Amino acid sequence: MRNLKVMMAYRGTNYHGFQRQDNAVTVQQKVEECLSKIVDTPTVIYGCSRTDTGVHANRYCFSFMTDKNIALNGIVRGMNANLPRDISILSCEEADENFHARYSCKGKEYLYKIHNSESPDPFAEDLAFHYRRPLDIGLITEASRHYIGTHDFKSFCSSGSDKVNTVRTIYDFKIIKEENNVSILVNGDGFLYNMVRIMVGTLLYINEGKLEPMDIKKILDSKDRKTAGRTAQPHGLYLNRVFYDSL
Amino acid sequence: MRNLKVMMAYRGTNYHGFQRQDNAVTVQQKVEECLSKIVDTPTVIYGCSRTDTGVHANRYCFSFMTDKNIALNGIVRGMNANLPRDISILSCEEADENFHARYSCKGKEYLYKIHNSESPDPFAEDLAFHYRRPLDIGLITEASRHYIGTHDFKSFCSSGSDKVNTVRTIYDFKIIKEENNVSILVNGDGFLYNMVRIMVGTLLYINEGKLEPMDIKKILDSKDRKTAGRTAQPHGLYLNRVFYDSL
Repeated sequence: MRNLKVMMAYRGTNYHGFQRQDNAVTVQQKVEECLSKIVDTPTVIYGCSRTDTGVHANRYCFSFMTDKNIALNGIVRGMNANLPRDISILSCEEADENFHARYSCKGKEYLYKIHNSESPDPFAEDLAFHYRRPLDIGLITEASRHYIGTHDFKSFCSSGSDKVNTVRTIYDFKIIKEENNVSILVNGDGFLYNMVRIMVGTLLYINEGKLEPMDIKKILDSKDRKTAGRTAQPHGLYLNRVFYDSL
Repeated sequence: MRNLKVMMAYRGTNYHGFQRQDNAVTVQQKVEECLSKIVDTPTVIYGCSRTDTGVHANRYCFSFMTDKNIALNGIVRGMNANLPRDISILSCEEADENFHARYSCKGKEYLYKIHNSESPDPFAEDLAFHYRRPLDIGLITEASRHYIGTHDFKSFCSSGSDKVNTVRTIYDFKIIKEENNVSILVNGDGFLYNMVRIMVGTLLYINEGKLEPMDIKKILDSKDRKTAGRTAQPHGLYLNRVFYDSL
């Protein structure tokens, strides 16, 4: 049995997230339908992560098993020729038999895109969050330093999560501004449900004077979701990278 | 009478170009409908340029006259609140009474975006031309040097143009590659119908070995559209900037 590791990108706008659901169109469903045709047998894929409705992926990893002797680039080309245009297969390689896109994952990087201008970006309606107020990059960068490190992120987790252990390590949190576009890059060993969106929403609260940079420490200590800021909208969020080697 | 100069950006995908037409939705129609409501009187706008169906604009200029005493930022906000999300007003300022978006224009810059990869970009279906073959940037850059300067560009003009004088000056022609994305920036005093798209299509012919870099001189000399390469697809093209001061 071959175990194959595939990287893909998708625009999440038209999907109810990655994971297969009974009554909604998801990325997993589209990919499994396409792949099952190409390998000519019903095939299940194992994704690295769930993503919410409207959330995008620049580099998403999934793995699947097959006993078919199809060339790797034939899989890439065949899938790209048959998938909808908002899902793109970037690469496919042979993986170790123990490799699993989710359980082998050592860390992830999320990207949150903000178009920060009075005027909307006509090219990014579903691809970046449009935030009209001036963003104080110095202020939110100062605040974001409190996210870095190993903390209990229970306050940054939406209800509905089944995670018992809410301790995670954030390795890096970068805020980059280029003209009117702000990119927030968050790198960590794992993420709770809506964690990045609540981290970003809390920074927006700080930008709006509703919270102070130092409040992030208090919010972490409180272990209470209600103390943090709002959950930032999904369409600015991208699963940007997935790491399988030790960081 | 006030003469106002407005900068806007638009995603051309859903429009039959800029210019008003009887039986098709255009950017001009949408903007005039919106503006006429805001100034509460039927208002005509003067655009800097026609654009074709599917062509985009990063910074498009139009002007209009009004005797209404509305604040400039009120016009920007009012229009952005009422226009479709694929048209964005960037700024509005008072202009000299003789200013006309088209006739005062001293030069323009076009951008042509190519996604150069085996895999499509799921975020750029209508926003960049997907070109699968490897692009030899050195080769097409060498070829593109022959475009720079003052030439008769009759060979780079689609039929249907009413231009008698086909001499234009190209000030700069830059090709920039960042990962899989190639940006072609063309800066000149004026452009013929489909000129940039034929220039780009001719570079793709050169990349594919159908023409040699030196052939561009021969194509210019021939003054015959049939000697040049294909017309590159519209959805990679952006009117990027418009110049009103001497260059």
